[in-house]
Amino acid sequence: MKEFLGDDFLLQSELAVALYNEVKDLPIVDYHCHLEPREIAENKRFENITEIWLYGDHYKWRLMRANGVEERFITGDATDWEKFEKWAETIEDCIGNPLYHWTHLELRRYFGYNGLLSVKTAKEVWDICNAKIAAENFCVHNILEQFKVEMIGTTDDPADTLEHHAAIKASGLVTKVLPTLRPGHLYNIDSPNFVPYLEKLSAISDVEIENYGDLMDAMQNRVDFFHEMGCRMSDIGMDDVVFEEYSAFEIDVIFNKAISGKPLTQEEIDKYRTALMVDLGVMYADKGWAVQYHMNALRNNNTLMFDVLGADKGYDSISDGQLAKPLARLLDTLAQEGKLAKSILYSLNPAHDDIIATMIGNFQGGGARGKIQYGSAWWVNDTKTGMEKQMTALANNGMLARFIGMLTDSRSFLSYPRHEYFRRIMVNLIANWVQNGEFPNDFEKLSQIAKGIAYYNAKEYFEF
Amino acid sequence: MKEFLGDDFLLQSELAVALYNEVKDLPIVDYHCHLEPREIAENKRFENITEIWLYGDHYKWRLMRANGVEERFITGDATDWEKFEKWAETIEDCIGNPLYHWTHLELRRYFGYNGLLSVKTAKEVWDICNAKIAAENFCVHNILEQFKVEMIGTTDDPADTLEHHAAIKASGLVTKVLPTLRPGHLYNIDSPNFVPYLEKLSAISDVEIENYGDLMDAMQNRVDFFHEMGCRMSDIGMDDVVFEEYSAFEIDVIFNKAISGKPLTQEEIDKYRTALMVDLGVMYADKGWAVQYHMNALRNNNTLMFDVLGADKGYDSISDGQLAKPLARLLDTLAQEGKLAKSILYSLNPAHDDIIATMIGNFQGGGARGKIQYGSAWWVNDTKTGMEKQMTALANNGMLARFIGMLTDSRSFLSYPRHEYFRRIMVNLIANWVQNGEFPNDFEKLSQIAKGIAYYNAKEYFEF
Amino acid sequence: MKEFLGDDFLLQSELAVALYNEVKDLPIVDYHCHLEPREIAENKRFENITEIWLYGDHYKWRLMRANGVEERFITGDATDWEKFEKWAETIEDCIGNPLYHWTHLELRRYFGYNGLLSVKTAKEVWDICNAKIAAENFCVHNILEQFKVEMIGTTDDPADTLEHHAAIKASGLVTKVLPTLRPGHLYNIDSPNFVPYLEKLSAISDVEIENYGDLMDAMQNRVDFFHEMGCRMSDIGMDDVVFEEYSAFEIDVIFNKAISGKPLTQEEIDKYRTALMVDLGVMYADKGWAVQYHMNALRNNNTLMFDVLGADKGYDSISDGQLAKPLARLLDTLAQEGKLAKSILYSLNPAHDDIIATMIGNFQGGGARGKIQYGSAWWVNDTKTGMEKQMTALANNGMLARFIGMLTDSRSFLSYPRHEYFRRIMVNLIANWVQNGEFPNDFEKLSQIAKGIAYYNAKEYFEF
Repeated sequence: MKEFLGDDFLLQSELAVALYNEVKDLPIVDYHCHLEPREIAENKRFENITEIWLYGDHYKWRLMRANGVEERFITGDATDWEKFEKWAETIEDCIGNPLYHWTHLELRRYFGYNGLLSVKTAKEVWDICNAKIAAENFCVHNILEQFKVEMIGTTDDPADTLEHHAAIKASGLVTKVLPTLRPGHLYNIDSPNFVPYLEKLSAISDVEIENYGDLMDAMQNRVDFFHEMGCRMSDIGMDDVVFEEYSAFEIDVIFNKAISGKPLTQEEIDKYRTALMVDLGVMYADKGWAVQYHMNALRNNNTLMFDVLGADKGYDSISDGQLAKPLARLLDTLAQEGKLAKSILYSLNPAHDDIIATMIGNFQGGGARGKIQYGSAWWVNDTKTGMEKQMTALANNGMLARFIGMLTDSRSFLSYPRHEYFRRIMVNLIANWVQNGEFPNDFEKLSQIAKGIAYYNAKEYFEF
Repeated sequence: MKEFLGDDFLLQSELAVALYNEVKDLPIVDYHCHLEPREIAENKRFENITEIWLYGDHYKWRLMRANGVEERFITGDATDWEKFEKWAETIEDCIGNPLYHWTHLELRRYFGYNGLLSVKTAKEVWDICNAKIAAENFCVHNILEQFKVEMIGTTDDPADTLEHHAAIKASGLVTKVLPTLRPGHLYNIDSPNFVPYLEKLSAISDVEIENYGDLMDAMQNRVDFFHEMGCRMSDIGMDDVVFEEYSAFEIDVIFNKAISGKPLTQEEIDKYRTALMVDLGVMYADKGWAVQYHMNALRNNNTLMFDVLGADKGYDSISDGQLAKPLARLLDTLAQEGKLAKSILYSLNPAHDDIIATMIGNFQGGGARGKIQYGSAWWVNDTKTGMEKQMTALANNGMLARFIGMLTDSRSFLSYPRHEYFRRIMVNLIANWVQNGEFPNDFEKLSQIAKGIAYYNAKEYFEF
Repeated sequence: MKEFLGDDFLLQSELAVALYNEVKDLPIVDYHCHLEPREIAENKRFENITEIWLYGDHYKWRLMRANGVEERFITGDATDWEKFEKWAETIEDCIGNPLYHWTHLELRRYFGYNGLLSVKTAKEVWDICNAKIAAENFCVHNILEQFKVEMIGTTDDPADTLEHHAAIKASGLVTKVLPTLRPGHLYNIDSPNFVPYLEKLSAISDVEIENYGDLMDAMQNRVDFFHEMGCRMSDIGMDDVVFEEYSAFEIDVIFNKAISGKPLTQEEIDKYRTALMVDLGVMYADKGWAVQYHMNALRNNNTLMFDVLGADKGYDSISDGQLAKPLARLLDTLAQEGKLAKSILYSLNPAHDDIIATMIGNFQGGGARGKIQYGSAWWVNDTKTGMEKQMTALANNGMLARFIGMLTDSRSFLSYPRHEYFRRIMVNLIANWVQNGEFPNDFEKLSQIAKGIAYYNAKEYFEF
């Protein structure tokens, strides 16, 4: 029986241990997350463990709700200690859940606490963590240094000034903090926020937006600006993947309807979205950026709680929309124009693993190694099961050795152990193949592959 | 090499064996099945092993058909011995199929036969089983006592008198046999049986049903009556999951069309079904019942055989309907009204495992532990593969420790070893995580979790 | 740690080794492939290893593209040596990919090379293989003899003369090479090639095709002719599975529109396809043929490359079309007419595994063992993962012991080791169940099951 969270955690063979030693000290390229640039710029410090762990982590909230905890102790007005105690009461029973691992990895790696969090130990853990948090050196910049975070890709609105990115750069922080352009507000043409958002975009880009062409001019301005500021990536949440044939004339008409406040049909929305993805795709390709497509999330499913708490509060789940055909059409349209950017495809639905793993193969080649990527197991799939399944699907259908690997997608500065978690699972998967006689025991080759996936592939891919 | 079906069957470590010892003698809460209340009331006895095993078990029929057995030996006029022999001939080759395990567990647990069923042993097994069956003590009540069945949830039509439930209660049987309201005939508004069924419902509820409001009155009457009779659950087969916005006026019009014998469009059917699920959902919530949603069965696929044998004869399979959006809308609508009952979600399509496992998380909380449940691997998924996959998906995305566990869904009194089968697989899954260092080796905690899933969670959940 | 590709490759127990010894020398029934009958008739010889391996293998091309290789080195005008070197550079990093196994199995079984292919060894391997290829005995007929290929099912257009099949038969080749009727050109009524194709079909069948009835007459002529030529199978690629109710009159109208060059609606196309599948299905049933349905491929996704290279060049992937309902309707329609032929169902989407595994159970029985088959893991699923998943789904839901097993689906004469690959994985899966106590250790029974799946079931099924 293995010790829980021991040195050889998740490593099932000596070879796995040896490979883990090769990758464990490599820097981290966390190319997609939701950290606040402001907090990095400010070198934020924290009040207590509840602030860090529970103020913004919808993963933990969902588990507490599953455990029947009243919302008061989750997002409500209970004290920080009360909330922490409820979390302790919940997590101690979370067998088989990745948060059991993340929680205890974080307690060990950030706070040096090697015990288990439970109702019984909650007060002890609370005190230990809060003492550490109060210490001078517990701040964002030190955390980034401790975990050797070489690059962070934040998620940024096109209308953002990127002032915090400028401040970070000026601060001399060793970690490169690069913006990622995420034009979600433009995508949601059916939202009441669309027209107000255009005004914001117009102001910052200094482009009067009266038609779709103007919008593209404004966006070209922002893409240019983001690029200057170090941006090398775009990102989009396509909850439903659509591809609807359109003409430039139709898009003009649809856009004009939208800015006149007229309601659009689903077909019109889909045509506009298709045009937007294509036209922005061309801009991204011209800059040599990578594009991330996040697909098949089903969001804001609990209206009652949405009305109280807003979006991204733990009420999202997996959608089962069909994506193979529209996704192929979108990528093909860009490829036909010679403008298919480096692309990273994620579906929240693991039933799509093999679809994505084979889809990328349709658009590879032409001198760029691993140009189209099957993105790391995303969000709810960011588990041992999910990561093994994603990497196995990729290996079966393409070149795992060219995989750009892990990202946290996190809102928390305490998530870097997830890279450790991924690296352990990844090297163990590789070692198991060798153990089972399915790949030669050539340590040099295995080490090179493992190090590529852990670090070097991403470093090369994003050209930061 | 492990002995087939030995004491440590499916238990791969000493820890798994130890955990199994903790749960093996716990009572059984079989909260959903298709046993006939009449047969329980009558304390039914049986003619021979073919009657018990082969008269009604479509699982066995499907295997025999896959083996090319003529229908005469399955549902036809062959003798009971001939049918038994054909079953023996089939099962001996069923490597990897759960029926190989169920069959031999049943032979051991009910008949004390420890050998293997095959063409060679068929006569011996036939004689041994039939001798046991002929003995005085081989009757339904003794079986329920032997297997410590504490509660049975049957499946009952709203128009049922529940007279057999009354008789069972009066008989002093220790097992609580509780009705479950399953309004399938109401759901199928497009069936020629709909109007005749309304008459039956009208008669028993003493409510004249002339419009949809009357129907709801009649159903409230039945819900009240079922509740008095101990019912704590409803169940529905939503082969296709639909959610179609509707107005009260539209539902009135649709209902009136239906009772006038006019054909309905699919949209009308879907609107009616949505209204029905919402309005009944409110009644269930008001009673504190649990609702079971059984989704994505594809039924009666073989018309030729349907015309001969009718429904539920082994011609059903898995559908691939999309369910994420309509299911979310249905649950959300009820939640918005503050009327979301305890709900148990089952999809026959295992490609939906992660969808369901994350969907439940959207509606948890508010003081009830595990209020929304991801139901045990259903029907064709009731295999080692299916159960491990369901529990892993649940553990990855929520709290396995709050899972209410196994039910047989069976039409046979010989199915109780499936609870043993489930318990072995469940404790082994848990033990494997500990063996692999993924959870601490805290026996007290593990035992508490395993016992909860095996028995206590269901007992608490159904408040019977 | 196991030796890579050692004698016990993929065999994880002594029992697995023993079972493999039972099946390894059995003949091969390769009942579905894309070999060129002409090349068999001509007893083709090869120039070099690049011709054999890289001229037509889109699996290898996809990996090379994933590795960023320029198209010039894949399908372009680079030299054969340059192409080979690029392949060597690619494959050495393909950990976890079945081509790593296939490649090295082929090097061992055909060329006696036991080393590893890499940039470093490329020249050595090139020389060794080319020397073998240059030897007198390296020809198609010898390969077929070496691998004990008892039967090959080719894939043939209804308008084919089958002259090469006649020549093969006349040549006295021990391997039976049987045509398979694949009416793909008829299925694609929306293609510009449809009308020209009808002319070809008309000419060879000597039937004037002026309406749909004439088409059926022509096809009956071809079915009769194919049957005389030894054909025992049909095959169709239903990329989207459709079933649309139709009348004979509607089909006449649709067919007339098509031959007049008028565009068809999707509904019309679907009606025609449904009618075609039903009417041809009757012909197949009358001949006692088996029908193969290949479903859910998404083809020709890269238009730029399609325009240069044409179809089947490595730009296909998995579709996520819904198939349960239309597939059930199609099979049911044939079953109702008493004309459901032996049928083999394949879906490229592994999320459909359980759907297919349960669908076949709806139409089994009536004296034919394993009449409806869940086809071997197809194309991109032809991996250890995919084969284990397919066989487990089949075992869980039906009778694995009646499975007709492996086929190569290949365009290459170097693919026969894939039968070895399959046999190793199959016996290991079976042995693992026994090791784990899930099936009795009855070697005679296990051997009989394994040999059935490896050879005897297919031999019996196709009645060649």
